[in-house]
Amino acid sequence: MAYVDIVTILAVFQFIVFGFKVGRARGLYGVHAPATTGNEIFERYFRVQQNTLEQLLGLVPGLYLFSHYWSPLVAAGLGVVYLIGREIYAATYVKDPAKRSLGFGLTFLPVVILLLGALFGAVRTTF
Amino acid sequence: MAYVDIVTILAVFQFIVFGFKVGRARGLYGVHAPATTGNEIFERYFRVQQNTLEQLLGLVPGLYLFSHYWSPLVAAGLGVVYLIGREIYAATYVKDPAKRSLGFGLTFLPVVILLLGALFGAVRTTF
Amino acid sequence: MAYVDIVTILAVFQFIVFGFKVGRARGLYGVHAPATTGNEIFERYFRVQQNTLEQLLGLVPGLYLFSHYWSPLVAAGLGVVYLIGREIYAATYVKDPAKRSLGFGLTFLPVVILLLGALFGAVRTTF
Repeated sequence: MAYVDIVTILAVFQFIVFGFKVGRARGLYGVHAPATTGNEIFERYFRVQQNTLEQLLGLVPGLYLFSHYWSPLVAAGLGVVYLIGREIYAATYVKDPAKRSLGFGLTFLPVVILLLGALFGAVRTTF
Repeated sequence: MAYVDIVTILAVFQFIVFGFKVGRARGLYGVHAPATTGNEIFERYFRVQQNTLEQLLGLVPGLYLFSHYWSPLVAAGLGVVYLIGREIYAATYVKDPAKRSLGFGLTFLPVVILLLGALFGAVRTTF
Repeated sequence: MAYVDIVTILAVFQFIVFGFKVGRARGLYGVHAPATTGNEIFERYFRVQQNTLEQLLGLVPGLYLFSHYWSPLVAAGLGVVYLIGREIYAATYVKDPAKRSLGFGLTFLPVVILLLGALFGAVRTTF
């Protein structure tokens, strides 16, 4: 399970780093709290962080449940794809939001595989 | 525990579907990323997803902790009420945000019962 | 582990209370759903809740993983610092967003200690 723990912690730290970039963008583009709009570039950094938050909510249960019903190693491997996909997502979104699809897919797909695998495992165990 | 796992995964998938509806509403109402405002109907879809995210943060720990201290079957049953309540919430909110109370109550109540039950169980175990 | 469960549930209830304050601020300052902007004081309550959501995503895995690799009691203690720090954060942010640093630090620091401790424990176990 320790592999899965490491990937989970790295995913949370990645999210924290995206949060710091939002904070830095507040200063750079003059968007003062509590505002979250007013500058297009700031809003891109903000949406990267918010979307990552949404994906984390699927990733973490997916990692542990897939790990429980199938394999911690495969779960951790899918988590690594997620981590790389999120970096691509963040880098492309900030440059041009219209180009965020590849990075989004590379994080969404592992999350869906983890969740569907876990669902299949849980249903098979129950019935 | 597998019942609880199934409900958790379904709740995450429900959230993902709400996210897709936000994406579709972007196209339908011309709200381009990174914006999250500008069209009232889009904003309703967006708030449904965001509020669901907030509720998931209470549901998932509630399900597992209630399950641990009391009964996985009762936890899963309350989770099913949550799933139905969220569908009512989403459907009514998009039509008229002022009518979101019933659906909100039907998800908020099971979450609070799960958390209070778990708190009572944990306190009783400790002292 | 029951200490950690109690702190987790209290952190979720704290988040729920912040959510209720957002609802109350909607009424007080005339910001009707689905809007989340339009009044500076409302936006402060809203950002307090949103930022707490972001921190919860690090706190909960941090609590359980630190607890697993090191000590549930130390984890719960750091969680108590988090709970107090969040109250300071909320109180100061609503008065003046520029003064939110102390409360932010008092919640961010315990979360980072929990996560780094857990990461160190997990890496040591694996290799």
